[in-house]
Parts: sequence; structure tokens; C-alpha cells
Amino acid sequence: MQAFKRFASNVPYQFRSVIYSSHSLEDATSVLSVHRYTPKVDPENSVVARTLAFPINPSDINQLQGVYPSKPEKTLNYGTKDPAAIAGNEGVFEVLSVPPNEKSLKVGDWVIPLYANQGTWSDHRIFHNASDLIKVNGLDLHTAGTVGVNGVTAYQLVHDYINWSTGGNEWLVQNAGTSGVSKIVTQVAKIADIKTLSVIRDRENFDQVAKTLEDKFGATKVISESQNNDKVFGKQVLPTILGDNARVRLALNSVGGRSSSAIARKLENDALLLTYGGMSKQPVTLPTSLHIFKGLTSKGFWVTESCRREPQKKVDAVNALVELYKGGKLTSPKDETITNYVDPSASDQELLEVIKNGINSPGKQVVVFKW
Amino acid sequence: MQAFKRFASNVPYQFRSVIYSSHSLEDATSVLSVHRYTPKVDPENSVVARTLAFPINPSDINQLQGVYPSKPEKTLNYGTKDPAAIAGNEGVFEVLSVPPNEKSLKVGDWVIPLYANQGTWSDHRIFHNASDLIKVNGLDLHTAGTVGVNGVTAYQLVHDYINWSTGGNEWLVQNAGTSGVSKIVTQVAKIADIKTLSVIRDRENFDQVAKTLEDKFGATKVISESQNNDKVFGKQVLPTILGDNARVRLALNSVGGRSSSAIARKLENDALLLTYGGMSKQPVTLPTSLHIFKGLTSKGFWVTESCRREPQKKVDAVNALVELYKGGKLTSPKDETITNYVDPSASDQELLEVIKNGINSPGKQVVVFKW
Repeated sequence: MQAFKRFASNVPYQFRSVIYSSHSLEDATSVLSVHRYTPKVDPENSVVARTLAFPINPSDINQLQGVYPSKPEKTLNYGTKDPAAIAGNEGVFEVLSVPPNEKSLKVGDWVIPLYANQGTWSDHRIFHNASDLIKVNGLDLHTAGTVGVNGVTAYQLVHDYINWSTGGNEWLVQNAGTSGVSKIVTQVAKIADIKTLSVIRDRENFDQVAKTLEDKFGATKVISESQNNDKVFGKQVLPTILGDNARVRLALNSVGGRSSSAIARKLENDALLLTYGGMSKQPVTLPTSLHIFKGLTSKGFWVTESCRREPQKKVDAVNALVELYKGGKLTSPKDETITNYVDPSASDQELLEVIKNGINSPGKQVVVFKW
Repeated sequence: MQAFKRFASNVPYQFRSVIYSSHSLEDATSVLSVHRYTPKVDPENSVVARTLAFPINPSDINQLQGVYPSKPEKTLNYGTKDPAAIAGNEGVFEVLSVPPNEKSLKVGDWVIPLYANQGTWSDHRIFHNASDLIKVNGLDLHTAGTVGVNGVTAYQLVHDYINWSTGGNEWLVQNAGTSGVSKIVTQVAKIADIKTLSVIRDRENFDQVAKTLEDKFGATKVISESQNNDKVFGKQVLPTILGDNARVRLALNSVGGRSSSAIARKLENDALLLTYGGMSKQPVTLPTSLHIFKGLTSKGFWVTESCRREPQKKVDAVNALVELYKGGKLTSPKDETITNYVDPSASDQELLEVIKNGINSPGKQVVVFKW
């Protein structure tokens, strides 16, 4: 404990984390427990931070189920009997203590982890390398807590693949137009002078949802999956929507199945279909002719792997997004999320219940510690 | 006719071509007619050649049906009432006359057209630019007449996408393992020390067909579509086939549907699925996870468009193939083709019948003029 005394007085003696040692496909919540432990610290290098908020992402749940291809190493570092990992991959933290010679961070900074698998469902965390943290000062809690996955995914999808022309009639087409990522895509694209054709499922209040996407988020045009799949629409109506000299070089797919074929058909020759999700559970389905005669390329995007290979792209994306949010150019995802508040002094059982409830509830769930 | 007299005496006054002015999806043969005409020549530039052989490719028939995305311009150059095009895209020709200062070609050379849409179903042709011809001296008729599409496709599929390591345990996987292109892929790959896993349809004489592909064409291993689709096979048997440190970076798809998913699943991370055909008429079907988590890229290959953009790649491929055939390293496709002999003095009706019969018959049809 000698070393520990060098930390500020606001660093508690014990941390509390939501951990797991095994997996369950049937009930992901069953593998979770709350664990208290005295963290191992290295005062020369450790950044200590308290957790402000973390989302419960589908990938976090898939990790608990044991079906996600990226996973944290389970260790005995937390003093558990069996090797364990802290759940969660995303979250925003407030710096409580920095190593003596650390210049890039200071106490009070808000940070998010650069890499996945750091474990975020915890009241405090220790980060052993300040360069594995990205500063997000100036954002609201919900934005900061979710910018590292949804925000970065949207930003990289828009900016990392197409060399957009300035002043051209450039479009991107995307399905799942109401999803969190799609809404950020829409806004990021608009800022870059790229128009969006957003496809959403048919629904009774289609006009109202479309109007919100267009007015609040800046979608250029919202169409339904029926229209997306309608060849007459594609031939006769779509050109009037796109206008003269339109270029459609990028399609973003997070649905699969017929929806993926239909957005791919709207692309010009030699264009790119980027898949980053598969909500319909149907495979990406591409008419052979699109590949052979229209030169279509189909690829995937996974923010975890992208960051592992090119971490600077994520840093750049976060920095760009922070500036856009601070400048009021992007809308906070707060309205799109369900907030689960936790008192840091809540019992272990209460903390666990909040998280289990979040896992089992629909919508984008964010857990916020009320420090 | 002044100009015409400068040609050699073996250049006839009249040419005879199989032409079309309209299209028919129902009966492609119905739009064809045999047309006799005096060709327009430019003795300073024209290469005159007589046709030795041409294949009837599916794409030729699709052009007659009006459903192929690449098509020749219809012109009045042949003295027809309506604008017409000469059918056919591939063939081998013997040079009868070359322009005065032409150094690259000489009388008697065998040549194939570099580009598609030149019109090859004709007893003679005039080529206005010697650089649009590729010399194929030393090949047999069937090889020369088909090397420009099947041969070049196979060669480019193997060589233009992967930077193969030498001495490694490198594999490619392909479906439709009995097709003409696949057999050339198999041989070209083997010469380059790349192993092939060839998938063929289930059939009663599977063992016999597999043995031929392995013994005659050099396929490393032939498996059935049932095995291709069997996940237990993929997990337990396939690794023993591939051996230690196997790399599987390229899958070649000319089938689509489940077969395309199954060969894509056999690829390592960050690999490439190249689609160049769609025999099953099913779309290319790719589990979302292959794109997102395994970094799969899916693209198409079309020899026509590849040549339009990078003609030198086709020239290089033909030159390499000619050397391999002449060196006895590749098996002539003659055994795989059905030969339709035509006497050049046959009546127009007879000539047309041979071609119509070829269009309506199964198997790879090649028409050979018996000069």
C-alpha cells in the first residue's frame, strides 16, 4: 500500500467492478458479479480515473455470451479465485491522478479508452499508459460515453474510404437510417457536404420519422425499405431525388439481406458497400452482376479491428468529433439513449441489478454514476 | 476498289460475316443473318486476316439477347440497310496482309483481338490497328481461339490480386472446379506453386471426375459441394487437407449462392473473394461476420472491363500463356470443346446453321474454318 498513498485522497482504497469468469449464450447476465478489490498500481505510470458513464453495447453482451471475436484476457489481477475480466468496452472517465511526469493529462480531464477490452463497467479504473486514453473534455456525459464506438464508427465510415470531391453532388446511401450510428453518419456527412439517402423500415408513422431525420439530423432524403426494394422507384423516382450529375460512391449497410442488395444497386460503377452491422441476421446478398459488371467492392468495417491496426485514425476521429460537438454542429445522442443512474454508494446488488436491467431492456442503455 | 488491289491475292473481294441489327431475349439465333460485303480498307493501316476459329461464348449470346452490358456499336459500314454489328468477341485469325511499314506483324502470323466487340463470327476481318492484335503463334486452334477470354481470365484471377509468397503453403479455393476457366486456374496456379482446393457438384462419378482434375489438371484436392457446405468438414477435415501454416487468401467464385458463402468461409482473415461468374443464378451471399470480423473483401472480375482499363495486363497474360502452352506446361482446351467445322465455301445457309446449332447446344462450342 506504500505506493497507493501517493495517489490523491479521492482515490478509494477499493474499486468495484462488474466482472465475469465464464460465458452464457442463454443468459448473459448470469455470468456477471460485482467484485471489490484493491487495485494494483504503478504510481510512476498509472492513471487513476473514476467512471462517469458507460453504455451497454450489443458487443459487450456478445462478449458475455462468448460469441464475440474480440475479447479481453481473463486475469487473476483482481484477486479472484478464477481468472476474470471486467465487463464493458466503452465509457468515459474522469482523471483522479496522473503519474508525476505526465504532461498530456491532468486531474479532472475526461478521457475514454483508445482500445477495446479495457473493462469499463467499474466505478474506477487504472490505465497503465496515458497514451491509451483520448481526452474528450467539453462533451456531455452521453456523448463522451458513446463517442468511441458509435461516433468513431460513423466518422470513419464517412471519411476513411472515399476521396469526396468538394462542390460535387456527392451522396451516400445507408440503411437502418434511424440507428444511432446512422444518425451520426447523416450529420457528419452533411457537415462534409455529402448528401444522405437514408432507408428506414416501413412503419405507420413513416412521414413523422422521416421528417425528424431530415429536419433534426439533416438527412437529405429518407425512403422506406419498400421504396428501396422497388425497381421502378429506383429507375424513375430515384434519379429525380439525386439530381443532375449525382455521384453515389458509398453505401453503408448494417442490415443485410434484401436491404443490402437494394442499397448496393443504387451505387454507381466501381463503388463501395461497407457493412458494419447485420440487424436482419440475413447475409449480405449481392447480385453477381454488381460485382462483375458494375465493379462493386464489398468490405466490412469494425471499429475494434480498425483501431487495433490504425489507432491514430480513432484518435483523429474522436478529436474531430469533439470539436464538432463543442461547436454545436452535432446533436448529442442523449435523447436517443435510456439513462440508468447509479449512486456510487449503492449496494453491490443494486449496481448489478441496474446493469442486468440494462442488458435486458431495449434501446441504447447508458449507465451514469451520480458522483 | 483502287486501294483494295494493293492487298495480297488471297484477300477476297467479298467478306462474309454473321451480323445482327436487333436483339431477342427469347431466341438469340433469330436475329442473326449472314451478310456479304466488300470491306472498307485503308491499305496504309489495315491488317487483313482470315478467321481460323472462334468460340461461341455465353457473353456472345447475351449480346444477341441484348442483355450484356458491353456491346459493339452498330454501324452502316457493312452496307446493310439498318445499322448492324458482327457477332462474336473472340477468335483466332491468320494475317493475310499487313500495312507497308508494319514491323510487329507479318503475313502468316496468328493473332487474336485485344479488345472485345471487334466482331469475330466472320470469314475475314480487317483490323485498323496492328497494336489491337496479340500474336499467338505456336498454339493449336482451340487454344488460340479461346485463350483471350478463358485463358486470360484464369491467368489474371491467379496472378493479378495476391502477392503470393514463394515456398509457402499457399492455397486458392474455387467452385465450379470442372469449368473451362477453373481447369486453367488449376494449372496456372500449380505452375506458380499455389495449391488449389476445387469444389465440384456432387455427382455419381465424383471420384472419377475428381481424379481427372487432380491427375490431368493438377488440382491439389477436389471436394464436393456437400463437403464445401459441411461445417464439420470445414472444421475437422479441411485443416488436415490444407496442412501446416496454410494460407488461403483467394477464393474464386463463378457459382454464387451457398457455394459462394462456403468457399468464402474457407478463407483466412483479410482475404479476397473474386466473383467472375454466376452459374447458379443465385446472388453472392456473404455472412455479415465474414466482412466485419474476418476482413473479407468481395470484388468482381470481368476480362472485358479489365482489358479496357489495363490492356497491357491482357497482353502480358496472353504472352505468358503462349509460352506455357508452347512449353507443354498447359493442356489444350481442345478435349473440353465441341468443334464445329465449316467449309469456307459452304453456303450462307449452311454457315448460319452451324452457328445456330452451336448456340443451341450444350458445352463449349468452337467453330473452325477448314481453309
